[in-house]
Amino acid sequence: MVYVVEMEVHLPETWSEKKIADIIAREKECSQKWQSSGKWKYLWRVAGKFSNISVLEVESPDELHQIISSLPLFPYMTINVTSICKHPNALRETIL
Amino acid sequence: MVYVVEMEVHLPETWSEKKIADIIAREKECSQKWQSSGKWKYLWRVAGKFSNISVLEVESPDELHQIISSLPLFPYMTINVTSICKHPNALRETIL
Amino acid sequence: MVYVVEMEVHLPETWSEKKIADIIAREKECSQKWQSSGKWKYLWRVAGKFSNISVLEVESPDELHQIISSLPLFPYMTINVTSICKHPNALRETIL
Amino acid sequence: MVYVVEMEVHLPETWSEKKIADIIAREKECSQKWQSSGKWKYLWRVAGKFSNISVLEVESPDELHQIISSLPLFPYMTINVTSICKHPNALRETIL
Amino acid sequence: MVYVVEMEVHLPETWSEKKIADIIAREKECSQKWQSSGKWKYLWRVAGKFSNISVLEVESPDELHQIISSLPLFPYMTINVTSICKHPNALRETIL
Amino acid sequence: MVYVVEMEVHLPETWSEKKIADIIAREKECSQKWQSSGKWKYLWRVAGKFSNISVLEVESPDELHQIISSLPLFPYMTINVTSICKHPNALRETIL
Amino acid sequence: MVYVVEMEVHLPETWSEKKIADIIAREKECSQKWQSSGKWKYLWRVAGKFSNISVLEVESPDELHQIISSLPLFPYMTINVTSICKHPNALRETIL
Amino acid sequence: MVYVVEMEVHLPETWSEKKIADIIAREKECSQKWQSSGKWKYLWRVAGKFSNISVLEVESPDELHQIISSLPLFPYMTINVTSICKHPNALRETIL
Amino acid sequence: MVYVVEMEVHLPETWSEKKIADIIAREKECSQKWQSSGKWKYLWRVAGKFSNISVLEVESPDELHQIISSLPLFPYMTINVTSICKHPNALRETIL
Amino acid sequence: MVYVVEMEVHLPETWSEKKIADIIAREKECSQKWQSSGKWKYLWRVAGKFSNISVLEVESPDELHQIISSLPLFPYMTINVTSICKHPNALRETIL
Repeated sequence: MVYVVEMEVHLPETWSEKKIADIIAREKECSQKWQSSGKWKYLWRVAGKFSNISVLEVESPDELHQIISSLPLFPYMTINVTSICKHPNALRETIL
Repeated sequence: MVYVVEMEVHLPETWSEKKIADIIAREKECSQKWQSSGKWKYLWRVAGKFSNISVLEVESPDELHQIISSLPLFPYMTINVTSICKHPNALRETIL
Repeated sequence: MVYVVEMEVHLPETWSEKKIADIIAREKECSQKWQSSGKWKYLWRVAGKFSNISVLEVESPDELHQIISSLPLFPYMTINVTSICKHPNALRETIL
Repeated sequence: MVYVVEMEVHLPETWSEKKIADIIAREKECSQKWQSSGKWKYLWRVAGKFSNISVLEVESPDELHQIISSLPLFPYMTINVTSICKHPNALRETIL
Repeated sequence: MVYVVEMEVHLPETWSEKKIADIIAREKECSQKWQSSGKWKYLWRVAGKFSNISVLEVESPDELHQIISSLPLFPYMTINVTSICKHPNALRETIL
Repeated sequence: MVYVVEMEVHLPETWSEKKIADIIAREKECSQKWQSSGKWKYLWRVAGKFSNISVLEVESPDELHQIISSLPLFPYMTINVTSICKHPNALRETIL
Repeated sequence: MVYVVEMEVHLPETWSEKKIADIIAREKECSQKWQSSGKWKYLWRVAGKFSNISVLEVESPDELHQIISSLPLFPYMTINVTSICKHPNALRETIL
Repeated sequence: MVYVVEMEVHLPETWSEKKIADIIAREKECSQKWQSSGKWKYLWRVAGKFSNISVLEVESPDELHQIISSLPLFPYMTINVTSICKHPNALRETIL
Repeated sequence: MVYVVEMEVHLPETWSEKKIADIIAREKECSQKWQSSGKWKYLWRVAGKFSNISVLEVESPDELHQIISSLPLFPYMTINVTSICKHPNALRETIL
Repeated sequence: MVYVVEMEVHLPETWSEKKIADIIAREKECSQKWQSSGKWKYLWRVAGKFSNISVLEVESPDELHQIISSLPLFPYMTINVTSICKHPNALRETIL
């Protein structure tokens, strides 16, 4: 099953530059681990914003939550989750 | 350049069943023409809603508008357009 | 997989009383067919509103869409879809 | 009487990791006490979000408030409360 | 149990003056029947708007829905329902 | 003249437990002073939320502001103010 | 007592040009009657929108409602009502 | 003085194709008259939407309103108006 | 030219009482300087809220910005700016 | 390709005056570097608000993101990005 997830980061204003640099490095490592696993299919930057749009193919809603909630910035993001499926007008046989 | 476009249909309540069936058939034909052209990369149904999320790769913003505004349901949809680009954490070299 | 779906009806103002009574009767028949199938687990009325909150257990997002979009009032409802999973604090072993 | 309650956590950015771990542990203990009592019927995680959807069966609005406001994270959540009742199209005789 | 209900009327633009006058007369009759029953405690006009704020004391959420949904204008109102209870700072022993 | 006022508390995350307990005690004292005066007619807890709905009968908008702005939590609340009057369908002769 | 009222007109799409011209003429007559009475102090056009911001000085909330609801376009406007009073920083002794 | 104005068209569903084609032709003529006058500096299409963003340089707010309200689609658009001025970081001496 | 400006204060939770008292005193001094100049025509308190509605008559949008941005609380307010002009139904010859 | 970007600054309440003055100076330097490059065509102040509306002409969405995200205040702004193109009613041959 496939989800489109939009995440917008709200960077805490009270954190030191070191703490911010550290969490951003761990965020990168974590998201790349899931990309390597083949489950995080697309990770797109929204042009001009501290946001991304992502496409994930997972076994279950539980697995989606395991992935997204493992991100170090998870508690500091506004997240929208959309469950998608095949469109009757789509020519492509599969979703991805 | 790549856009993520979300379209939600608001079906006119005063149209006859025939008029609705007709416009939905023309909508399908039109969207499939653009899919065949290779510019409309993904057309996903939002599960449980009269909406789609689409991914289009176009030459210019003008071409994006030409495609979306050619849809017969264009005046009766709420449309959100997001311009996307490469994310610094993305493993994939290209956007699509 | 389980979804919580909220549907709010916007009754068309131009329809005759007969047309409205007819579509509401077909809506009932349709929703009861899916309840009988065991997939539409809960159908709750929001007290004081022309809305319901429903819980559906389906095989896939495609099946969720098949069920919701088969409702005669589907084009005239504002629909919110939430994909849910097991909560780490839940005592219950299964979702439902 | 039955309520559907959605709670979204906004984790304070200035709290130490220890203070956060502590409040999350107490949150778990508190919510499980109410689940054990039989009043907190369902506790679902919203997939991909720091939110839950819960179903509670209580004696009165006062009891609902007693339960929700006893949660340690209560002041740091956005909470939506919906009072539900029997739907005319529901096959099930009781709400739960 | 007590509810605060806010109702905002959206008068259909396509109805004849006679049809509007008729439904407004039936609305008055219906709301006064429920006021006479003692369940609809307060019916206040929001100054300057086609809205009311009402306070109802009912046996159950089902009874609240029975009352509100019996109003002829029910399908043409935006309705907000709030379930209230005793406030810890209130001097008054009872809610009403 | 009568106002319906809804107040939602946003508890500062950086305050000590003692500072919070202190302001909540002073809030109680202040609201009870105004209730005793007969101007703050109803103080209702919104079930499940850190909010109240209140009904105040005052001499003027200035007096309403004097009362609400004297609350210690005033700067940390989202406040909605609604001016109400007699409804043409109301059976009751007076507003309260 | 003084109110600031913002009104945004939503012109019905199904009305004939004659019906629209007629209601706009009656709207003018009605608003000028209230301006002449001295109660409708200011009537400002919002530049570029089909909206106005008005300032009214009335005896009571009931009188405000009597004035606003007498406007022929009343059912077809989105209306926001704000009750104002003396500001502690204001140099002017009176509100108007 | 310079304004940025965003206009989103909501095409009436009950109008005939002829009536729509006619109003769109008159809309073009009207907007081009104002562009020729030198007051309507920029007229941009929002890519993928039935909206435009425009920049107008006018003598007064009254003149802005005269221009925008002369558009045949004026009553059927959602319009946002922003008054702009020189930014302290701008290198350009003039606004346009 | 005349603007209606609504300002809502969000008092920082981390500031000392002394710092808050100081900025509020400077806010008063600053707003009174502009009122004395004759440009800040009305300063109204929104009854029951930490907000004001103001009416300013200025030479240009730049002057409006100079005034509003000179307020010490400027960075901690949510501000809405509306440019107004003469209404066709207004009896008064001038705006103020 | 051309974008209209609106940025609203949310100044952190916990930063020292020196830290704020420093970041505002670096913000100016950074935005002026991009204006000098010819890519940041217009930088307008929204009158009365801590916001700007900007027009940028860039090679790609990636370049837009490079510019906007290089601003020191980037993580502390609410940003809206609109991709624009030629309007069918525009007299001007080019967008800028």
